[in-house]
Amino acid sequence: MKLSTLCRPFFFARRYLSSSATCRTSSCKALVYHKLGQPEEVVQLDGNHPLREMGADDITVDMMVCPVNPSDINQIQGVYALRPPLPAVPGGEGMGVVSAIGSHVTSLQTGDWVIPAVPSLGLWRTQVVENEKIFMKVRSDIAMETAATLSVNPTTAYRMLRDYVHLERGCCVIQNGANSGVGEAVIQLAAAWGFKTINIIRDRPNFDEVKNYLMELGATEVVTEEFCGSHKMTSLIESTGKPLLGLNTVGGKSATNLMKQLANSGTMVTYGGMSKKPVTVGTGSLIFKDLRIVGHWNSQWVTKNSKSEDHHTMIDELCALAAQGSLKAKHCLTHPLNEYRTALCKSMTPFVGTKQLINMQP
Amino acid sequence: MKLSTLCRPFFFARRYLSSSATCRTSSCKALVYHKLGQPEEVVQLDGNHPLREMGADDITVDMMVCPVNPSDINQIQGVYALRPPLPAVPGGEGMGVVSAIGSHVTSLQTGDWVIPAVPSLGLWRTQVVENEKIFMKVRSDIAMETAATLSVNPTTAYRMLRDYVHLERGCCVIQNGANSGVGEAVIQLAAAWGFKTINIIRDRPNFDEVKNYLMELGATEVVTEEFCGSHKMTSLIESTGKPLLGLNTVGGKSATNLMKQLANSGTMVTYGGMSKKPVTVGTGSLIFKDLRIVGHWNSQWVTKNSKSEDHHTMIDELCALAAQGSLKAKHCLTHPLNEYRTALCKSMTPFVGTKQLINMQP
Repeated sequence: MKLSTLCRPFFFARRYLSSSATCRTSSCKALVYHKLGQPEEVVQLDGNHPLREMGADDITVDMMVCPVNPSDINQIQGVYALRPPLPAVPGGEGMGVVSAIGSHVTSLQTGDWVIPAVPSLGLWRTQVVENEKIFMKVRSDIAMETAATLSVNPTTAYRMLRDYVHLERGCCVIQNGANSGVGEAVIQLAAAWGFKTINIIRDRPNFDEVKNYLMELGATEVVTEEFCGSHKMTSLIESTGKPLLGLNTVGGKSATNLMKQLANSGTMVTYGGMSKKPVTVGTGSLIFKDLRIVGHWNSQWVTKNSKSEDHHTMIDELCALAAQGSLKAKHCLTHPLNEYRTALCKSMTPFVGTKQLINMQP
Repeated sequence: MKLSTLCRPFFFARRYLSSSATCRTSSCKALVYHKLGQPEEVVQLDGNHPLREMGADDITVDMMVCPVNPSDINQIQGVYALRPPLPAVPGGEGMGVVSAIGSHVTSLQTGDWVIPAVPSLGLWRTQVVENEKIFMKVRSDIAMETAATLSVNPTTAYRMLRDYVHLERGCCVIQNGANSGVGEAVIQLAAAWGFKTINIIRDRPNFDEVKNYLMELGATEVVTEEFCGSHKMTSLIESTGKPLLGLNTVGGKSATNLMKQLANSGTMVTYGGMSKKPVTVGTGSLIFKDLRIVGHWNSQWVTKNSKSEDHHTMIDELCALAAQGSLKAKHCLTHPLNEYRTALCKSMTPFVGTKQLINMQP
């Protein structure tokens, strides 16, 4: 059963009963880390976390569900490019409901579903008080876990498919890590926009199951890393056309094999480095094949374009695709707030195949 | 003494005496290779090479001097991206004088100095008959070796400084292989346009001599590969500002060290791979530092833009800089045609420090 279905009655009851009372609480529950380290060791539940007083431009958001993303884990470990001052509340993504608004607030109302408009906000808490500009409204007729996981993975997929190469309908995109959250969003957005996708995943016992699921989402082809590194790719690429765009979240040999499949003047966009190995490209591929090797940092895009027209357009478009069933969240497993350690551990376990969510309302 | 000074009286005498007679010869002397291999072994002097008959749109060019470029050597060895059908005449660059014109020719006159408007023409020959569009006129008040070496190295430098990053006066560019033909052109064009340059060369017994020469050409800083890989670069970069553009003709560790010095969102353009090692870049540098790794193939640019307005503007601008003394050819050593093997061998010898030219008029 969907989390949204589970939560909605509870949520609506809560909203109408307690909107003004809730906003006056001066503390909330929050997950906090006081030092960098292994997430399940350093993150603690603070039952009395201070909540700042609401100003005229502020809103109070009751956080509903938040996913555990690799960037959250890396921030807690201290290996991410951004390090918030400690102690810190983790959580760059999530979905909440406006439970109170300040007297000058114009863009949001109580009851609105909202997602963060800026990255790394620290959302693993039951409530948050922030300026209204820090959140964006999303429609409430989509699954709650879709809303909760919209602002990182689908936006990363959206920007990478839009900002680096001009793709026409029928063009082909190749990606590794294709069953990641971003990978599944790439498959669905590409299918919605008429692009073919060649999707590379690691071999695994349930390869056929994963392949079938990705094909259901709209993948054109799903192959293993080994297949991509073999001569068999030649005839596959002949059938799809050479990809102009490659999306790399692995690095190392996987990235090398991916680059080999690109068309002349193709672009490889790196947005992750799961193998912890660098990207290696022959000088001949740069000079004679005219490959372009770039990176995408979604948080940077969001920071620079927070609540811009482009940002609103993107979120609205993603919500519309979600509402019509063309954009589904990755399979989610929701954990109660006090079982957050399980969520953290499971998010770091290989081949799990689900996105871990934390239900913030105990 | 300059080659131009040596050749000019000879050339002028020849032009006025023999312009119509010359064009009717049906053969010329040419360097030819019938199979791929080591240049000094496979290239032969053909004393009776066929010369096609002139049509109404054709011109006859008496070739004066041609440089031996790495791309010529690589083509003869069969390791270049382009392989002309065999037997072939090598020579992608050179300077000649129009000795006859067809009845429909409008853009050129006898006596005009010309350089090729297309790459890989096969110019190591005493005469060539081609459509007038295949050549471009250059002014005759510049040194002959400058004209002969204008269409590959200075144009590569020009395009790389113009086409990849928007540079304002005072901006900084970093390059390795800085004492190559392209490297010296980069230093001079950057100085003429108000850009600083950090120039990396391999350590060598006469490092100070090479450094002084590059500083005379307009270099801001000249350092060894070892220096660039050390912590000492930090304070040097503080004084120049972080480079937005890096030019790489080496690859491997040299390229890695160069990339480390780039500003956020900096671009590294690879145009050669002298170390025969690939370019390796950490995924973090792509994602969080937003580095862009691209390649430049000058022949491709020239092919696509042959005799375009951009091409004419560039050649005119380079000639103007040469005429005012701001763009000098690399130190040249000129070999008689029948000693071409010496020219080929010397062009492949490390640390020679001169560009080898072949005098095509025996």
